[in-house]
Amino acid sequence: MLHSPTDTICAISTPPGRGGIAVIRISGGNAFSVCRKIFKSATSSPFAKQKGRTGVTVNYGHILRGDEILDEVLVSVFRAPHSYTGEDVIEISCHGSLYIQQEILKLLLSAGCRLAAAGEFTQRAFLSGKLDLSQAEAVGDLIASSSAAAHRIAMQQMRGGISGELADLHDRLLHFTSLVELELDFAEEDVEFADRKQLNDLALHIEAVICRLAGSFAAGNAIRNGIPVAIAGQTNAGKSTLLNRLLRDDKAIVSDIHGTTRDAIEDTAVISGLMFRFIDTAGIRETQDAIEQLGIERTFKKIEQASIVLWLIDLSGDIRDIEPPAPQIIHHNTERKLILLLNKCDLLHEDECEQKATYFKRFNEDVMVFSAKSDRDIARLERKLTEVANIPQIGDNDVIIANARHYEALTHALSAIRQVIAGVGSGISGELLSQDIRDCLYHLGEITGQRIGAEDVLENIFSKFCIGK
Amino acid sequence: MLHSPTDTICAISTPPGRGGIAVIRISGGNAFSVCRKIFKSATSSPFAKQKGRTGVTVNYGHILRGDEILDEVLVSVFRAPHSYTGEDVIEISCHGSLYIQQEILKLLLSAGCRLAAAGEFTQRAFLSGKLDLSQAEAVGDLIASSSAAAHRIAMQQMRGGISGELADLHDRLLHFTSLVELELDFAEEDVEFADRKQLNDLALHIEAVICRLAGSFAAGNAIRNGIPVAIAGQTNAGKSTLLNRLLRDDKAIVSDIHGTTRDAIEDTAVISGLMFRFIDTAGIRETQDAIEQLGIERTFKKIEQASIVLWLIDLSGDIRDIEPPAPQIIHHNTERKLILLLNKCDLLHEDECEQKATYFKRFNEDVMVFSAKSDRDIARLERKLTEVANIPQIGDNDVIIANARHYEALTHALSAIRQVIAGVGSGISGELLSQDIRDCLYHLGEITGQRIGAEDVLENIFSKFCIGK
Repeated sequence: MLHSPTDTICAISTPPGRGGIAVIRISGGNAFSVCRKIFKSATSSPFAKQKGRTGVTVNYGHILRGDEILDEVLVSVFRAPHSYTGEDVIEISCHGSLYIQQEILKLLLSAGCRLAAAGEFTQRAFLSGKLDLSQAEAVGDLIASSSAAAHRIAMQQMRGGISGELADLHDRLLHFTSLVELELDFAEEDVEFADRKQLNDLALHIEAVICRLAGSFAAGNAIRNGIPVAIAGQTNAGKSTLLNRLLRDDKAIVSDIHGTTRDAIEDTAVISGLMFRFIDTAGIRETQDAIEQLGIERTFKKIEQASIVLWLIDLSGDIRDIEPPAPQIIHHNTERKLILLLNKCDLLHEDECEQKATYFKRFNEDVMVFSAKSDRDIARLERKLTEVANIPQIGDNDVIIANARHYEALTHALSAIRQVIAGVGSGISGELLSQDIRDCLYHLGEITGQRIGAEDVLENIFSKFCIGK
Repeated sequence: MLHSPTDTICAISTPPGRGGIAVIRISGGNAFSVCRKIFKSATSSPFAKQKGRTGVTVNYGHILRGDEILDEVLVSVFRAPHSYTGEDVIEISCHGSLYIQQEILKLLLSAGCRLAAAGEFTQRAFLSGKLDLSQAEAVGDLIASSSAAAHRIAMQQMRGGISGELADLHDRLLHFTSLVELELDFAEEDVEFADRKQLNDLALHIEAVICRLAGSFAAGNAIRNGIPVAIAGQTNAGKSTLLNRLLRDDKAIVSDIHGTTRDAIEDTAVISGLMFRFIDTAGIRETQDAIEQLGIERTFKKIEQASIVLWLIDLSGDIRDIEPPAPQIIHHNTERKLILLLNKCDLLHEDECEQKATYFKRFNEDVMVFSAKSDRDIARLERKLTEVANIPQIGDNDVIIANARHYEALTHALSAIRQVIAGVGSGISGELLSQDIRDCLYHLGEITGQRIGAEDVLENIFSKFCIGK
């Protein structure tokens, strides 16, 4: 526990706004006494007297402002440590009027509570050991998740998926540090407590696990933040219309004047349980307009960052006027996928469509004859996007890294464990070896918020060895 | 009970959107069995086995979608009739992600729930006799209330204020109908069970109570819907700027071009616990523009409906160019208050302000030298508005009518009870007298949703009399 917070915090925990019910949460040492100041139980004995209970109790009664009844509420009482934060917690379930929510909050503040900072209830859950750091982070991800896949990753993480995957490896590695450091105390005797062969095996296993976890980050990140799809092409090819169809609202301005969309617009849509982040870009054409020129530069940057590029072509024009995508779009050696959407096919005869499609296949094999006005074509494109995104199906027990902080920690842990492997191979000194192991432990510990200090190593030694020293 | 609803309903009861917690409510005969299909308790024994308990029990566990854990939740179990609706009720407290909220709702729907209609939980509370009609209406008002005064009226009503005020009178009047109708059965014997003197006294008392309640409607309505304040005056006098200052946002378009505000804009602000409804109006000037002309006509209509008119005058112009308010604004015999706001005083010397103010006092005694740019002046105006609004202080036990439906019922009940008084005075027949009393009872009953049928009168007779008939 980093520090022991003693003040009592409160906040409205339900979404902001007006509703049938709102829930106000109070946590801290004074939660019960603060609540007793403003709440009068109408039925059962007041919660203050229900000592020794571990279960939640619910009391019906009134919130009082002086003598006036402000609201009829239900008060749920969670006695420490049997609560979300591990502290004494009160949840007031009141009528969801904005006025009542604000007034109850005011009463709590004047009764001695402090307004909770963002995430502070979860922070306290972490500080009291109810959740580790990756689980605490997952609570935020869980609430923010808007797709089935993102939800599944967050839920897996909140239920300790990553922590569980790492905990055992961490403990076994810690054991080796203890042994290696013990050798240092017996340096003159040239003993070897830590079997170098076993250490090497463990390090190789850890390397493999870290590689697998770090390797899941590309998919995890795409799922958590949305798979970036750039919608690009010449001006007036129908990019904004397509975006609107995919997002099903009217965020982008659609017009028949060339060069309407000057700024990149981003929004997300969930298709088959996956979140896609669509980026509308400025049309690409030769231009003297400085602002439009800037927009086109930005377009190329956006395309660089996208996983999928939908390049729209207005099929209705003369084929000689249609420029194929710029070479830097077509020729690239990244993981980026390019789909040529031959739009406005509804304005042409079928034969002409086919003929033109054949022409464009010379630039890119993925070519789709398309009309942004057709519901069937939009559905076909959505299926295509899900297929091209190539996100592996995530099982209930698959651990996926979706958090950049975790990925960074894993990357550092990976180089440290590779140092360990190299060190064991070249037979470096116990001091250096111990340092590399500690480095790896430090970075693995960063993920769950577990820090390894000298005491931990000592504690591990003394708990397992009793050598009469 | 009008009918007995057998289906089980569910809805998200917390405000729409993303938050820390969301609450999903289920009510109906199958609430427990539906919940058992999707919830797995992680700690205590499942709620289904806790028969015979009257208190609320809270269970921690998981919402399952097939084998997958969708969320970790708390489930509160309210056993009929000890619940809000009087039916079996479940409240699922889940993480407030939009995705989770939707998915749990989907699971409930496929487990056999129906999505609740607006207000349906409260409707069920009414149908099961947990609330009378005026109390049920007050729940909606309570949630909608955004000022201290509106909240107090709704709370008073929800706690049965109006019902309590009327219940005793209703019962005593019902008693008299029974007596009068009993006389009809003994018509040939010319008996008089109902003492006409006592009936007359009761009717006079009822008349007085109804008059008092109906009289509170003007204040109650103003509190519930906001006190309408029209902001009017010549074009460019600073009306939109003033409105923005009062509302503290930028809803109205402010510009220096004359005649900017063509449509009436309404918004509310709470000042000292009272809600004011501000109406920005089109500037009044001679114009050939047909649309602007329409706006000006609308302005006069809005002014008709307002309780307070703030008439702005641009003091910085030549006094000969400033037109005083139109005669129909100044000369009126309604309750409407007029305040002349001599705006832009910051552009003038103090002496000139005083001189001009004296000039304008000939039109209206309430004149305020003012600058919409000054925070002090805005605060001064706000104090003035609260004072002029003249809303009586509402005590905790004052019953105020704020609902137009109640007012209408009271008006009808009033004319019926006056018929009774006249009837007793002129000694009309028992049949006619009974009809007038029933009329009054009917309209009083409308407020609480209590309907008086022939059975009620009979029941009243048989419960109190046993005459061997």
